[in-house]
Amino acid sequence: MAGPILTFTSDFGHRDWFVGVVHGVIHEHCPEVRIVDLTHEILPGRVARAAFVLEAACPDFPPGTIHLAVIDPGVGTDRRGLAVRAHGQTFVGPDNGLLEWAFRDPKARIRELVEPSFFRRPVSRTFHGRDVFAPVAAHLACGVAFDSLGPAVEDPVRLGAGEAQLADGRLIGRVMWIDRFGNALTNLRDEAVRGAFPGVDDERLQVRVVDRTIRGLSRSYGDSGSGALVAIMGSSGRLEIAVVNGDVAWRFGIGEGDEVAVREAPERPAAG
Amino acid sequence: MAGPILTFTSDFGHRDWFVGVVHGVIHEHCPEVRIVDLTHEILPGRVARAAFVLEAACPDFPPGTIHLAVIDPGVGTDRRGLAVRAHGQTFVGPDNGLLEWAFRDPKARIRELVEPSFFRRPVSRTFHGRDVFAPVAAHLACGVAFDSLGPAVEDPVRLGAGEAQLADGRLIGRVMWIDRFGNALTNLRDEAVRGAFPGVDDERLQVRVVDRTIRGLSRSYGDSGSGALVAIMGSSGRLEIAVVNGDVAWRFGIGEGDEVAVREAPERPAAG
Amino acid sequence: MAGPILTFTSDFGHRDWFVGVVHGVIHEHCPEVRIVDLTHEILPGRVARAAFVLEAACPDFPPGTIHLAVIDPGVGTDRRGLAVRAHGQTFVGPDNGLLEWAFRDPKARIRELVEPSFFRRPVSRTFHGRDVFAPVAAHLACGVAFDSLGPAVEDPVRLGAGEAQLADGRLIGRVMWIDRFGNALTNLRDEAVRGAFPGVDDERLQVRVVDRTIRGLSRSYGDSGSGALVAIMGSSGRLEIAVVNGDVAWRFGIGEGDEVAVREAPERPAAG
Repeated sequence: MAGPILTFTSDFGHRDWFVGVVHGVIHEHCPEVRIVDLTHEILPGRVARAAFVLEAACPDFPPGTIHLAVIDPGVGTDRRGLAVRAHGQTFVGPDNGLLEWAFRDPKARIRELVEPSFFRRPVSRTFHGRDVFAPVAAHLACGVAFDSLGPAVEDPVRLGAGEAQLADGRLIGRVMWIDRFGNALTNLRDEAVRGAFPGVDDERLQVRVVDRTIRGLSRSYGDSGSGALVAIMGSSGRLEIAVVNGDVAWRFGIGEGDEVAVREAPERPAAG
Repeated sequence: MAGPILTFTSDFGHRDWFVGVVHGVIHEHCPEVRIVDLTHEILPGRVARAAFVLEAACPDFPPGTIHLAVIDPGVGTDRRGLAVRAHGQTFVGPDNGLLEWAFRDPKARIRELVEPSFFRRPVSRTFHGRDVFAPVAAHLACGVAFDSLGPAVEDPVRLGAGEAQLADGRLIGRVMWIDRFGNALTNLRDEAVRGAFPGVDDERLQVRVVDRTIRGLSRSYGDSGSGALVAIMGSSGRLEIAVVNGDVAWRFGIGEGDEVAVREAPERPAAG
Repeated sequence: MAGPILTFTSDFGHRDWFVGVVHGVIHEHCPEVRIVDLTHEILPGRVARAAFVLEAACPDFPPGTIHLAVIDPGVGTDRRGLAVRAHGQTFVGPDNGLLEWAFRDPKARIRELVEPSFFRRPVSRTFHGRDVFAPVAAHLACGVAFDSLGPAVEDPVRLGAGEAQLADGRLIGRVMWIDRFGNALTNLRDEAVRGAFPGVDDERLQVRVVDRTIRGLSRSYGDSGSGALVAIMGSSGRLEIAVVNGDVAWRFGIGEGDEVAVREAPERPAAG
């Protein structure tokens, strides 16, 4: 019988052997698990970027999936290790905001990783991905009880400022990620846009980013001519800014962190 | 029991989480499958290059293998999705020429992917890799009948100009791929060369590429001195142009798309 | 039942399909094996660097693991193929020094790969990773007897100069690898340092690298201020030189191959 899916996200890259070693530890502790690498190309220590990857990717996985995430610049200090049960899935990683998306589930339950029988011994000072987080994730995949990991945690480290804001009739978010295809993924979720502008048709919405204004949301990249700047509800339920057959960064200088604002377009004056 | 092998080729790269999400969908629909990534480093939208990868790699896989390929610049338009049974294997991807190698099997059978019960719902407008192609491939891996996918297709989109041409005693092809080791892989297959020059020994063949002429085919890279430009029948049964311990692009300016011509060498005048 | 873990290290990169083809061959010959990629980003032909990866990574894997390694610039020549049983694990690769770490086990047993029934036929002249090493490793994973591979080998090709030297009270090694986090991993193992300076406390050790002297070994990266150059016993039991929150190459010009010397620090004169 195939075991659960265990995803793995890190800033380890592919040149060193660290990803492979973590896979080995997981396989050793839970032979039946199916490992899925989300990405290991997070730049070293960029916790917020990896938190966005988890937020974007995890909803696509089935209930029961375990997500291991190791972006851990504080390894060797007294930062805590955590496991979180949220959204019907389980998350394992350091207490530095990386698991922010899990914390947004109001029913999230959190445990601190203190039970050494679930660790790999001896625990090094510099590689808790191998020695703490991977073995704990593997033990969870093979049936260890979540509540046996350690005491409950009520005050995890949170990432600030990740949510969209509504002000003066404008819904304001920002560009979170430029993907390989040159699309700018924002933190403006479909529900937030619909909730802020109830009953407003897509073509009446207006999106402002950097020095550009986009009128209306497109239904697919193919709706506009090559080179056009369009806004679209993307495949992860977020507003995306895209250039048809192009790259938003190259063509329009749009980058991660840029503000994106949605409003209802003003009426156009009648022709005449 | 281990399930079938399912290969996955895309232009998704490794920085984003898209490859991982597709793995998750495959595992969800067919837990026993064994996923093999061919490459995800195809440049965005380069259909012909990915078609060459499939042509070069798929013959190395056993009968029954399922090949999922997603280079899909037309996602969201009305381009069709296809499954093909050919060469004893099964191929799933968009109808844009990507599956050209499968179509070259005279016994190829093609179905259009229209049966929504094999899709992931709702189907997004921008990520059919996740919502259409991966779940269909996984269902096929777990035993869904090929003919139940949708109606037969007789007119798939074909890639032109991929075959070698024989003209004026010269077999003319081109460089299809420069690999990591700096070898130029051509579309001149072993059978085509033997067929064009029956009974001609390897040392009597002459290969012309860019401004260089190579006399004779080598048996291995080690047959010539370091820095020599050689022609060799490579491990995928194609003529390769290689520099011993070097890179054909750096040393000789040979690049993808360059013409390669094979002919029988003229007799050398007797030493006098 | 899950099969053994089989790791795979190569210089194949991720742009071509070679890694995928090798995975396919392994899965074909041993469906139950669990493949773990260590790295495929070794620069082409850099045998010594890959040998270091194996040395650093293999001890983290459980007994019974099979390690397939293919950095094979001599493919097609008469270099031998080897399998080695050492350190409770099995290693498969070309006879060019790549498996050096295995040879350091005094109880290592070595076989030459000559039995063609364990190969993929026909064996190409240029891709023994696919045709020889992968199928042999897979057969071993599925229970083929080690001694049936071929005759015993007593004289494998060795890598020179990999060991630390003690001279004039200084233990001298070198930087072997700069990892993604900008840490310099050396070949000075914990046991060698302890053995050379028995009873000397960590704070009395002095490390010299390039034009810098570091006094004392740190216990974790967090012990010193940001930007400080520190020496630490790393997670693979080797001395590492690190910059807190930085990169040793960028900040201090430390690179692979640089000499690293450890000595007992001279007494500091009493404050006066």
